[in-house]
Formats: sequence, C-alpha cells, structure tokens
Amino acid sequence: MKQLNSKEQIEIIRRGCVDLISEEELEKKITKKKSLKIKAGFDPTAPDLHLGHLVLLRKLRHFQDLGHTVYFLLGDFTGMIGDPSGKSETRKTLTREEVLENSKTYQDQVFKILDSDKTKVVFNSEWCSPMRFEEVLVLTSKYSVARLLERDDFSKRYKSGNSISMLEFMYPLVQGYDSVAMESDVEIGGTDQKFNLLVGRDLQRDYGKEPQCVLTMPLLVGLDGEKKMSKSLGNYVGITEAPIDIYGKLMSVSDELMWNYFELLTDIPLKELEQLKQDIQAGSIHPKSVKSQMAKLIMDQLHPSNVNEEAIAEWNRIHDTKNRSIPDDIKTEIIGEEYFREKPPLLAYVLNQIGFIASVSEGRRLIKNGGLYLNEEKVLDEGTTLEPGKEYIIRQGKKGKFVKLTT
Amino acid sequence: MKQLNSKEQIEIIRRGCVDLISEEELEKKITKKKSLKIKAGFDPTAPDLHLGHLVLLRKLRHFQDLGHTVYFLLGDFTGMIGDPSGKSETRKTLTREEVLENSKTYQDQVFKILDSDKTKVVFNSEWCSPMRFEEVLVLTSKYSVARLLERDDFSKRYKSGNSISMLEFMYPLVQGYDSVAMESDVEIGGTDQKFNLLVGRDLQRDYGKEPQCVLTMPLLVGLDGEKKMSKSLGNYVGITEAPIDIYGKLMSVSDELMWNYFELLTDIPLKELEQLKQDIQAGSIHPKSVKSQMAKLIMDQLHPSNVNEEAIAEWNRIHDTKNRSIPDDIKTEIIGEEYFREKPPLLAYVLNQIGFIASVSEGRRLIKNGGLYLNEEKVLDEGTTLEPGKEYIIRQGKKGKFVKLTT
Repeated sequence: MKQLNSKEQIEIIRRGCVDLISEEELEKKITKKKSLKIKAGFDPTAPDLHLGHLVLLRKLRHFQDLGHTVYFLLGDFTGMIGDPSGKSETRKTLTREEVLENSKTYQDQVFKILDSDKTKVVFNSEWCSPMRFEEVLVLTSKYSVARLLERDDFSKRYKSGNSISMLEFMYPLVQGYDSVAMESDVEIGGTDQKFNLLVGRDLQRDYGKEPQCVLTMPLLVGLDGEKKMSKSLGNYVGITEAPIDIYGKLMSVSDELMWNYFELLTDIPLKELEQLKQDIQAGSIHPKSVKSQMAKLIMDQLHPSNVNEEAIAEWNRIHDTKNRSIPDDIKTEIIGEEYFREKPPLLAYVLNQIGFIASVSEGRRLIKNGGLYLNEEKVLDEGTTLEPGKEYIIRQGKKGKFVKLTT
Repeated sequence: MKQLNSKEQIEIIRRGCVDLISEEELEKKITKKKSLKIKAGFDPTAPDLHLGHLVLLRKLRHFQDLGHTVYFLLGDFTGMIGDPSGKSETRKTLTREEVLENSKTYQDQVFKILDSDKTKVVFNSEWCSPMRFEEVLVLTSKYSVARLLERDDFSKRYKSGNSISMLEFMYPLVQGYDSVAMESDVEIGGTDQKFNLLVGRDLQRDYGKEPQCVLTMPLLVGLDGEKKMSKSLGNYVGITEAPIDIYGKLMSVSDELMWNYFELLTDIPLKELEQLKQDIQAGSIHPKSVKSQMAKLIMDQLHPSNVNEEAIAEWNRIHDTKNRSIPDDIKTEIIGEEYFREKPPLLAYVLNQIGFIASVSEGRRLIKNGGLYLNEEKVLDEGTTLEPGKEYIIRQGKKGKFVKLTT
C-alpha cells in the first residue's frame, strides 16, 4: 500500500471505532513520524481467540498496512501475580512457563491477521520486574484515589459495598505505566478498556512524555444478537474453527447483525454496504446471498479462499433443501453440554434421548440396515459419536423423518 | 525493677492510654515471652521534640522498665520519597544525609527518656528498599480500598472532593508492612495513628504472623488548654528548652490541665493525685505549689534535679512580687511572630511599637541612663533583642511603670 497522507489514514482508522482521543493529535503524530508505535495489551490467561478479538486485531492490521508498527503486549508481569488474595477468579496466577506457552498459542492465532514483519511481541515483565518499591511509590503519586473510583466497575462495586482490593487499583497504573515504558503513540482497546487507556495517556504526560492517542473499538455482539461475543456465553466463532462451522454460524446471524459484522469484520467499503442495503430493500438481491458474502469475507481472513469455497459448497450441499429434499421446517433439537461432559456421546444414544427413536438398540438396528443418514450420508458405524459446536441433519429411511441436532 | 507478672505490668501499661487492643492478648504475650518487641514509628522530618512526644516516649520507657525492648523506627524509606507530586507540604523529600542527621538529633533527645540499652534504632529502608514490584503488589492485595477510605481524614477528604493520591493510600500499607518485617509484638502511637497501627496488626495476620497489640496514647493538649501541643501553634514546651523556660511555661497552664499533665507526663501514683485534689479542695494546699511539683517532676526527666532547682529559684526571684515589688496586675503584651520574621527585634523598637515609650531614641536614652530593666536586671546594651517563646518583665525607672512581654 502506498503511504497515505494523514487525512486518508484517519479515514481508514476511524472505521468502526468508538472513541478516538484525539483525531487532531493523531493527525499531528502521523505527520511528524512515518511509523507510529501502536500498543495493544492482551491478557495472557485466555489464548483462545474469537471474532470479538478480530475487531481489535483487524484495526491493528489497518495500522500496519498504513506503515505503523504494532507492539503486541502480553501482560505477563501482572498475569504472573494474579490475585494473591485469591478473591478474584479472573486473576489466576500463571507460571512463567504457562505464560510462554499461552503466548505461543496467541501468536499462532494473531498472525492470521497481523503482519508478523510489522509486529513486535513484548512482555511487560521486561520493565516491571526490575522496578523497585521507590519507583512504584513514585508511580502511585501520579494518580488519585478519586479518579480510580470513577472507573465504572469500581464505582459500582464501591457503592454496592463490594470489596475492591488495592491490588485492583494498582492494575490500571501498571497498565498505564506500560505506555510510559514503551513510549507508545497510540493505544487500542475495547470500549471497556477506555478508562485504562486514558490512565496510560495521563501517566505519559506526568512522566514528561508525549501522551498517546487512545482508540477504542466496540465489543462485538455475539451470534445471538444480544450479548457481547464471549466463549463462556457460547455465542462465539473461534478463530481456529473449521471453515464449514464458521460459515454455518455466520449464516445463522440476523440480517441486522450482518451489517455490524460487515463493518467491523470486513474491509468492504462503507459505500458498497449502502448499495447492498438498497438492493435488498429494492428486492433485487436476496439477504441470504449478502450474508454469504459477509461470511466469505470473514473466512478468507482465517483460511485460504479455495478451502473456504469448498466448505461453503459442502455446507450448501447439506442445507440445500431443493436438491436434497430436506424439508424447510425440520425440528431442531439442542444437544446441551451435559451430553459432552465425560466423552463424545453415541449418536444412537442421543437420538433415543430426544425421542427420535424408541431405544438405543433400535438405533443400532437402523444403522446396520443402512436406514440412518447423518448430513445426508449413510451412517456406517454403530459407534458414531457427536462433537460439540456442530450442526447435524439426521434422516431416518429414504423419505423418512428428519431432525436437526445443534450441539 | 523486679520482673512483674502480667497483671501488674498491664496496670502500669494502661496508665494514660486510650486504646489497648487487646488487653487479653497483651497479657498472653507477656506471659509467653519475657521481652516483647515494642515498635514506635517516628517521622524523620521533624526532629524537634516537645512534651507531646514525651507522652509516647514515657510509655515506651515504661515498657523498658518492665523488661521489654523498644524498636525505635525511623521511617526513612518513606521520608526519602516524600510526595513526588509535590502536592503535600508535609511530605518533603529528604536526602539520605538529612535523614541520618535528623536521626542523630532525634537520638540526642529521646535518650533523655529512653533507656539506650533497651532501645534498637531501626530504619525501614532496610526492608523496604530491596522490595520488588511483585512483592509490593502482593502487599496491596492484602488491603481493600474501602477499608482505607474508612480512615477519618481520607473519608473527610474524599467526601469533600479533596484529592487523595494513591501514594497516600500506600503509606498505611508501608507502615503496616514495617510491623510484618519487624515482627513487632506491640505498636504504640498517638490516637491519630490508631488506624495505621491496626493496618499493621491486620497485615501481620495476613502474612501469617502473630498480630501485634495496639496501644494508643492521647495527643497532649498544649499550654493554651485547647489545641493539641504542636510547634506550629506555639503552645508547646520543647524537650531541649532551658529549665527556667520550661518551668515558666508549665506554671502558666490552667489548674485543670495540670492534672492531665500529671497523669501523662509524670509517674506520680494516681492515688496520690486523688489526695492532692482533695487537699486543694479542702484548702489545705495551694494549687500553685502542686503545679510547681508537677513542673519539677517533668523537668527532672529532662535536666539534672539540682539544675532544675536553681532554675526554679531564679524564676521565683523574678516572679516573686512580694520581694521585688512587681505589681500583681502588670499589663501583658503579646509580641506576635510577625516581629520575628526577619531577625530578632530590638527591645527599644518593640517597646515603642506597643506604646510603652514614645520613640526608639527615647528607649536608647533610657538604656544609656540605666533606667530600663529587663527581668529586674538593668539593660546595659542598646542592641538588646528579644527571643521568641519567652516572657520578659520590663520596668522603666526605679519604681516606674511595668509591662510584661510574651513573645
């Protein structure tokens, strides 16, 4: 990409972002230096990335494409400390080995999106571990209790009488000090990180450095269209999932959410999006085909295009009711995680549990006689089991009854 | 002193103290160990001690007399840090040299009261300076924001919107950590230190050590009978003042305050005090003579008894109105500190300012002619100046007019 001027760069950077503090400052920085230091902090406790993380990673990639360098910061120092009081579940203490292992898993995933030549992976233990008590006290002198209590979650917990440990008050300072040590020009985070990013900006100023610009990205809404995407809520698409599963999940989102995913997860120009919307309204294009386009654009960032095409064809083969005479209105059964607690459940067992067949032995008989189809292919093995996070179309007999299993 | 049992010891320890947390625990500690570690922290910024400090030092001396060891802790680590934000006037940054010099001045003064053989002078830089960031974070994990905000002054400042820096929140933790590192059995402080002393007790428990007992002593009321004794309010008696000045100041306190000073600054048994009170009420003894007894008992802790006797005789010679024909009702003029801002003021200048003489040159003439007396001695030098914190009786002519100057 040719070097764009600051105005052109800002236009790309602004896409999808919620706060940019401030545009004027960022423009000045871009004009002054060709390559800015872009800081993004990641928690080394959760290395399984999903599309929610992609929003941030893609914005970092935009910066890289514009010629800037991403400092991918792993908060190993704080990760290794965790919460020694044991009060916080989310702050488990990690060993040095765990941190390094997590960091590898991270890198395997993030370099699907980031340009590794323009990425520096850094660890905050580098500057935090050697800090002496005296320097820590100097750091604490730069920030007031009242300002920390202004942070939304702190303020709520304080008002409702829930304990906040002094350690938790230290974390924003540590995170902010990272910006001082790294001399970052820009820090990017989710909107939930805005407070912490601003602490970094304040601290840089207090330490006599040029304050970083702060850019926040929205938290991606999950497949359910309601809550933010998260692994624990199950409404996510993992970065390492198989193409066919990603496609299936993305095809399940509402038309409304589709536009949001287009904006945050693809580079399709906003003008083109407008045109697509109009075409749908005019009836000249079917929403499903637009959704498929969105899904493909996202998949192409994670897997090779031809692999994705095959996966989409396969998915269509299964789901194409015209060719395969699968009725439109098959009953769907959710196979909850209770089935997967110990080991993958037997297909025949599950079908019996949901009342599709009368007994497990009937299932075995059906399979032996070639009368049970899974995703329109004959089930040959009585020991066939189900995997979590998939969708299965089950057919009994040539023109028999159907059921869809969502695991 | 023979080794007393725990009950007898507690009786001595309890005298004058406000809080003892808890008596039962202290009794157990005394029974278990013969010699307890008694911690008392001192701020290395203010080495000029007055009778207010004596309350604490005397209590420490009681412990020494009972066989215990005093750990005289100078907070040099925190003193050297001060308040780097420059917001707090009271927290000036001290150099290592200043701290050491102040510590010497301290020791010169405290060993008037403390038994140097049973005193260990310690500096908290010993254990604080080597602490790493990680260990500091572990320390912060032990205490909650809400509990620190409960401290009276913090709570007031937070409610009134006055800024509290995170550094100030760290100080109670540092002070408390001193107890962890020192493994103190008892910590003594003024009532204003109660919160901080309890932090030490909590932290010891959190670090798996036996928690210290906490003992608080009242803040001594100053000579004015209203505010706490402090150098800045001018209502103090310095430990290093001349015996005659100490006597004069102590004789000026109200009869009510006298009983308080008796209890906190002398060892006279409380039963004897009761007797003295009754004798005064019955009219069998004059309050002035009881006050003189109180003053002498305090002075004997600071200067040799015979020196004090001479000083009292000298004071009486000056103040004895019967012998010296100084009228009872001399007018008193307060010579405020504005006179002492630049250099000690000339006697003649001050007398003119208060209207005692018509001009400074009249003053010079009077002195030249031997017609001006200061504390009943002829003023010989026209350059005579006044010092702050004193009382002067001025007489003009053999049987002329009087004025008393309080500087």
